[in-house]
Amino acid sequence: MTAGLVELPILTPVAGIRLASVAAGIRYHGRDDLALVELGPDARCAAVFTRNAFQAAPVIIARDHLSQASPRFWLINAGNANAGTGDAGIEAASECCRALSRQFDCAPNTVLPFSTGVIGETFPTQRLVSAFPELATGLAADGWERAARAIMTTDTVPKGATANFQVDGKDFTVTGIAKGSGMICPDMATMLAFLATDARVDQDALENCLQHAVAGTFNRITVDGDTSTNDACVLAATGGPDAPTVTRSHPAYSEFADAVAQVCERLAQAIVRDAEGATRFVTVDVHGGETEAECLLAARAVAHSPLVKTALFAADPNWGRFLAAVGRCGITGLNINKVEMWFGDLLVVRNGTLVADYDEAAAGRVLAQTDVRVAINLGRGRESAVIWTSDLSHEYVTINAEYRT
Amino acid sequence: MTAGLVELPILTPVAGIRLASVAAGIRYHGRDDLALVELGPDARCAAVFTRNAFQAAPVIIARDHLSQASPRFWLINAGNANAGTGDAGIEAASECCRALSRQFDCAPNTVLPFSTGVIGETFPTQRLVSAFPELATGLAADGWERAARAIMTTDTVPKGATANFQVDGKDFTVTGIAKGSGMICPDMATMLAFLATDARVDQDALENCLQHAVAGTFNRITVDGDTSTNDACVLAATGGPDAPTVTRSHPAYSEFADAVAQVCERLAQAIVRDAEGATRFVTVDVHGGETEAECLLAARAVAHSPLVKTALFAADPNWGRFLAAVGRCGITGLNINKVEMWFGDLLVVRNGTLVADYDEAAAGRVLAQTDVRVAINLGRGRESAVIWTSDLSHEYVTINAEYRT
Repeated sequence: MTAGLVELPILTPVAGIRLASVAAGIRYHGRDDLALVELGPDARCAAVFTRNAFQAAPVIIARDHLSQASPRFWLINAGNANAGTGDAGIEAASECCRALSRQFDCAPNTVLPFSTGVIGETFPTQRLVSAFPELATGLAADGWERAARAIMTTDTVPKGATANFQVDGKDFTVTGIAKGSGMICPDMATMLAFLATDARVDQDALENCLQHAVAGTFNRITVDGDTSTNDACVLAATGGPDAPTVTRSHPAYSEFADAVAQVCERLAQAIVRDAEGATRFVTVDVHGGETEAECLLAARAVAHSPLVKTALFAADPNWGRFLAAVGRCGITGLNINKVEMWFGDLLVVRNGTLVADYDEAAAGRVLAQTDVRVAINLGRGRESAVIWTSDLSHEYVTINAEYRT
Repeated sequence: MTAGLVELPILTPVAGIRLASVAAGIRYHGRDDLALVELGPDARCAAVFTRNAFQAAPVIIARDHLSQASPRFWLINAGNANAGTGDAGIEAASECCRALSRQFDCAPNTVLPFSTGVIGETFPTQRLVSAFPELATGLAADGWERAARAIMTTDTVPKGATANFQVDGKDFTVTGIAKGSGMICPDMATMLAFLATDARVDQDALENCLQHAVAGTFNRITVDGDTSTNDACVLAATGGPDAPTVTRSHPAYSEFADAVAQVCERLAQAIVRDAEGATRFVTVDVHGGETEAECLLAARAVAHSPLVKTALFAADPNWGRFLAAVGRCGITGLNINKVEMWFGDLLVVRNGTLVADYDEAAAGRVLAQTDVRVAINLGRGRESAVIWTSDLSHEYVTINAEYRT
């Protein structure tokens, strides 16, 4: 089930990036489940990771390697998260990096490992390592789409996006892929997302741009409120010394940052559209707050409420459930009598109660759309915030009650 | 569906309390949906209400009346929450109190109104008022069970409990009834719960006792994380001047407080057992925290996680989902490698990973029980906290996607 997810767009290759995918038999049969991304020698790399205190082994290793050296490889597997695997899991992730470094004659700490899948199962190191020779021969600049498919778990469709920008009159590209469908409530990072640009960008600009993009995109989506143990989002800039360097003070920085944010937003929204069991893509747009933080409190309370989510599944304009979620969200001194709410363009609540000319059938028609916008005015100030989420369907329960069996 | 809920126990009448229930046709047909509780002239009354900023009209009126006079009547209807109804809702609740005061020749502010049901529908004042004469003739000391049935909404079974205690060698009773099945995450109060004792208790002791009992019982349950707009829990003590007065310094106070807490705990657990779609009653017992607050953070994160709740529905010992919820709960400096977790008596996680002799089949058998205990040691200190919750089933989605239609 997906909520209005379109076909994967054409993903423009990025100079300096080659990708390969193989079926390593980690968990799935008859499909790719291991991807490798090779970064050119001039590449710089920025990354953000989950803030869950329970961090998967590859997150720990990738963070460590990133602090030591310039990455040359991203190694990504689906089917096994290598999380909750203790010292053995750390050793497994390290051994994968060492084996890959032997294959390519590079330093082990230039390999960043990423894993997604079931938590707590022994990591099948040997299956990955056995597939490295095939991975090495398969590297190609046009491997983005196949890699987007290889990293899927409960995802039903691959996710990717491309955007363009100019630096000093020259055209550059940002292309990214992501996976994610459940355990989605990113905190400073998302599930797995991999972006690259052929521009030359200095480290400070690269990190700043990624942090801002993630804060406004991946960190604004929620499927189930469950922050993953494996969240990671990485961005590489491959441009060599001949290209102009984008710094934070370069006139092209904002155009570059917009392109990165655009790709992040499309990937983040694609994750919500492909959320487990999703039938609707819901934009919760809260404005009129004193601070952005209180708008986020209200938007997240609405987006996480199982009562709201089941009402959305039923296309039931049960506006009291939305308002009750706003009421309990924890904003000090909130006056519910000043709150207004719209389903789409339809004003439903004013002064804390139903509008006089309320048309329930019309409200139901708005909620029956695949794309639903719920706007809430807190009536307290001028700040705003948006959260994107999905509904809670029978299919969600089926998927999560049966995922391991 | 209920998770191991036993038959309603025999509810001991409380001297000074009479109850009546009628079918007023508020929403349901062929069943009682309106109850009246009459308190004797010596009764004192303490109450706690929802802290949701979105408060139903009866909550606003009841709180106001309680501050003005000693209550003589609790008027409780099911089927319409009179919430989100604006000024018209306030007027409706007030008019019910005035009409009832004319029926019984008392002051309007001695009536406390309580409502539960659908949010945002016009309150059918006249249907209630028309039923008052029949209510007046039906008052009886043994009306507890029938009242427990009259206040049900999505509840599938009535909920009540009785406990006994002694003051100066004399026997007294606490009896209570409650309703609640969804929108359950009480904050300083629960859904609707009504308790009474025939002891004589001074106001300070009554309020103190209720607040403590609620904090450790109703405020420790969650079904869906959604705090209701109508939560209220009231306790009356009907004892007259001939009875010894229980104060906070009276030697019988602790026995009295224990009896109230016992009744509250049974009612609170009954609400979870009858939670919408519940197939399991889950005790999340977190210990080894530096503070009780951080134990509650962890327990609530586990209890609210849809991934944990669907795993419980499937009896799937998917321990990584539990640990991931602990990891994201927001405890600063939590070291996941010190965390231990048990399913029932079975140690599953030690040092942040699976124990060496883990027996998945045995873990599955534990989770397949109706009553499941999940114990978590944070490995940081000596504090602890318990939360009771239910699982997330297909039936939950069905109930909440279809409740209004």
